[in-house]
Amino acid sequence: MTDKAKEAYSALMARSKEMFVIGSAGGILHWDMETKMPPAAQAMRGEQLSALELIVHKKLTDPENDALLMICEGDIDPFDQIERRNLHLLRKSYDESSKIPDKLVTETALHQSKCNMVWKKAKAAKDFGMFRDDLGKMIELRKQAADILMDVKGTRTPYDALLDQFEPNMTAERIDEVFKEMREGLIKLMDKVLSSDTKPDLSVLERKVPVDVQRRVSSDAMAFIGYDTTSPEAGGRLDETEHPFTTGSFDDVRITTHYYEDRFFSSLFSVMHEGGHALYDQGIPREWMYQPVGTPCSYGIHESQSRFVENIVGRSPEFLNYALPRFRKFSPRSFKGLKNKDIIAAANAVNPSKIRVEADEVTYALHVIVRFEIEKDIFAGKVSVDELPQLWNQKYSDYLGVKIENDAEGVLQDTHWSGGAFGYFPSYALGNIYSGMFLDKMQKDVPQWRKGVRGGDFAPVLQWLRTNVHSKGDLYDPADLIKAVTGKEITVAPFLKYLERKMSKIYGF
Amino acid sequence: MTDKAKEAYSALMARSKEMFVIGSAGGILHWDMETKMPPAAQAMRGEQLSALELIVHKKLTDPENDALLMICEGDIDPFDQIERRNLHLLRKSYDESSKIPDKLVTETALHQSKCNMVWKKAKAAKDFGMFRDDLGKMIELRKQAADILMDVKGTRTPYDALLDQFEPNMTAERIDEVFKEMREGLIKLMDKVLSSDTKPDLSVLERKVPVDVQRRVSSDAMAFIGYDTTSPEAGGRLDETEHPFTTGSFDDVRITTHYYEDRFFSSLFSVMHEGGHALYDQGIPREWMYQPVGTPCSYGIHESQSRFVENIVGRSPEFLNYALPRFRKFSPRSFKGLKNKDIIAAANAVNPSKIRVEADEVTYALHVIVRFEIEKDIFAGKVSVDELPQLWNQKYSDYLGVKIENDAEGVLQDTHWSGGAFGYFPSYALGNIYSGMFLDKMQKDVPQWRKGVRGGDFAPVLQWLRTNVHSKGDLYDPADLIKAVTGKEITVAPFLKYLERKMSKIYGF
Repeated sequence: MTDKAKEAYSALMARSKEMFVIGSAGGILHWDMETKMPPAAQAMRGEQLSALELIVHKKLTDPENDALLMICEGDIDPFDQIERRNLHLLRKSYDESSKIPDKLVTETALHQSKCNMVWKKAKAAKDFGMFRDDLGKMIELRKQAADILMDVKGTRTPYDALLDQFEPNMTAERIDEVFKEMREGLIKLMDKVLSSDTKPDLSVLERKVPVDVQRRVSSDAMAFIGYDTTSPEAGGRLDETEHPFTTGSFDDVRITTHYYEDRFFSSLFSVMHEGGHALYDQGIPREWMYQPVGTPCSYGIHESQSRFVENIVGRSPEFLNYALPRFRKFSPRSFKGLKNKDIIAAANAVNPSKIRVEADEVTYALHVIVRFEIEKDIFAGKVSVDELPQLWNQKYSDYLGVKIENDAEGVLQDTHWSGGAFGYFPSYALGNIYSGMFLDKMQKDVPQWRKGVRGGDFAPVLQWLRTNVHSKGDLYDPADLIKAVTGKEITVAPFLKYLERKMSKIYGF
Repeated sequence: MTDKAKEAYSALMARSKEMFVIGSAGGILHWDMETKMPPAAQAMRGEQLSALELIVHKKLTDPENDALLMICEGDIDPFDQIERRNLHLLRKSYDESSKIPDKLVTETALHQSKCNMVWKKAKAAKDFGMFRDDLGKMIELRKQAADILMDVKGTRTPYDALLDQFEPNMTAERIDEVFKEMREGLIKLMDKVLSSDTKPDLSVLERKVPVDVQRRVSSDAMAFIGYDTTSPEAGGRLDETEHPFTTGSFDDVRITTHYYEDRFFSSLFSVMHEGGHALYDQGIPREWMYQPVGTPCSYGIHESQSRFVENIVGRSPEFLNYALPRFRKFSPRSFKGLKNKDIIAAANAVNPSKIRVEADEVTYALHVIVRFEIEKDIFAGKVSVDELPQLWNQKYSDYLGVKIENDAEGVLQDTHWSGGAFGYFPSYALGNIYSGMFLDKMQKDVPQWRKGVRGGDFAPVLQWLRTNVHSKGDLYDPADLIKAVTGKEITVAPFLKYLERKMSKIYGF
């Protein structure tokens, strides 16, 4: 490697570090805004966040980056795999950010705030008509960006360019194939479950569990998965917000949950879900800190980690049989008279519903598929804004067999579109699919893992996730990571097999 | 005003806003570090804070500021008082920051971390010898800065340049005069108190008050002074740290306190003290937000506000007679058998002690005077580092009549010097003096204020502070503010009169 290329690479890594550090400072301000900030501070916080974003944006789009990248790219052979990946990721983010005109960036940011506000009002009023124009404008703005990004990224369609932001190198065509298979498989499984004679008693989920007991349960669950919030070396913490989330990286990764007396499992599984995200963020190799490769792979892979911990482990009979006796000790009264078996059935109940965030493991992906199909049609110009509610309701009827009564429980239920985050939804279902593939491989590598969990030992699972997923950072695009770990192309079969196996035991088919 | 000057001024205000916004983001990161941050995040937080400081430093020392300032200064007549003040303050901070070489800034910052670490160890070991060399180097570094700042600021001595950072335009000569008078007055008053037959029963301060009761007391105290942490428009919050502090500005001003079961008054008076700081930070005129004039006047004026609320109001018989019956209701057992009179006497006990932060209202300033006199000698080259412990102990014996047994309770007790903050200490005692002068004037303007407090009404006091102090922001240097408010030069008499009056009633002399 020439000295010039070496120096250019070092300069790029220093720039990457600056962006990462300032970006992570913004992350803390976001966390504070959601958890601790006095309400009056909203406007000032907006100024602070914009200022930091602007600094990072300027650093990212600095033409000097292009010059430095070209020096390295002109002498690429001596760079190793990791260095090349860093250069690829920087090139990609530089090209994408610098090609979108500042005017479009600003206009989109301004419209995001407005559109989100209008969406909230429209949802409260259950009236899509109120949201129509602003959603239309948001779609228009994202189309403009997608057209530009399509050229930069070289994707086949504008929508693929949007997908690529969340799931690099993924295409609607590929997603179509796997989602079709998943839709059919899940509907078949859902029908089996619904026609089973076993009907879990859902009222057990509504048993009142005092909030302070739920807090002890949260601590216990965090200790179980190895997410440390208490030791003098802890890099995590748990707070309370209406909508649980995870934020941060490396030595400072924070999660939140919510507590409702009559929804005990909501806090437990939120902690497991966000804990799964957090373990991933903490598990990226430290030697890659501040480098592009030292970040998570994709939204879908991230979601696979949270779902792995929440669903595959957390809702497994093995975990629940281990954990429930412990929870009983914290509050004998709350669980009095309940059998583990009934709790496990209730925690794995399948009920086609109208609301995505309340959906169970079997029906969840069907909600996502509805959204993906609609987004694809929007960006292919096959559906107008006015047709969205009707299309939404039709698909809910077709796939989930539920009748949407109003826009609030229909097309207005999610915030994503109001923020212009088209292409985000598929990650959720891809997360399910990936988690199934990881499980399949882990089952072969660590056949005793269920026995471990039954005895309270999550370490072998975490070890497997660390080695196979976390330690890979952003070294691969998601499909390549899946291939590297499992040796296979993306396939729905393992996820369906996993669900079929669990549900058949619980529902006896 | 020419268009060019107008434009230059607008550009400077935009730059001021940027610095303020990024600086305040750093403030949130600091707060988080002290209150919520997972311990493992320390190193990353250091990176984040340095990055933001560097950004602000670069913006402040940008030579373009000089050019813009010169345009305005060349056409100064049409600018009004506030605009001129903004230009003066920007000029001052630009000149000072740009004249100190980057090398010295970096070296000082690095030595601050090291020196603070060594100080902690030396204090734990009660061994000044361990700290000697690093303190010597810190003094050397600050002397270099002070020599440069003396030229920039045009002060008579290097130490005056350091003082000016905390108390603009204040000189050691002027402080000498008022401190001499204060020292004599306080020692006289202390002797009167100590020779009185009234001996407050200090054990009443150690009555156990459960922490949750203390939390209710804190809420009650915050509600009394009008520091809002609970409404949907709240701009404040209360958290817990070992050392209480206040941080923030305008719509986001946060305080902390600590709770010890057997030190009830420590949490109450911490909340009142920090609350006094917070009310000041919240009370700066909103129309000056993001401008240099939209900041507090000085460290001393800030301290006058905290002491006003904590001591003049909080320790007054009127407030305690109002508040104690309320506190009794929160926890009848904690206060059982205690008379208000005895609690008031204990809360105003005078005891010459060795530790500044535990000192009472009468002896507190004597601790500060010791430090001021020593600092002055250090920067006049009249005392060597090796002589500091001996000099310290001698002054404690002379002024406070206490015998220092080891360096931890002597010269090593405070963190300030390890951070190079020479010139900071006088602000504390100036705060006392200012608070006395404000009281004197308020007594004339609002003669019924004590009656109001006795009935639970703090509003007239807050109104007076808002109108006379908070609303002035940084429009004046502290001595000029005092003059504008009270019509007088800085004088110790009102503070001494206030203390004499209160103590004579309690101690019967």
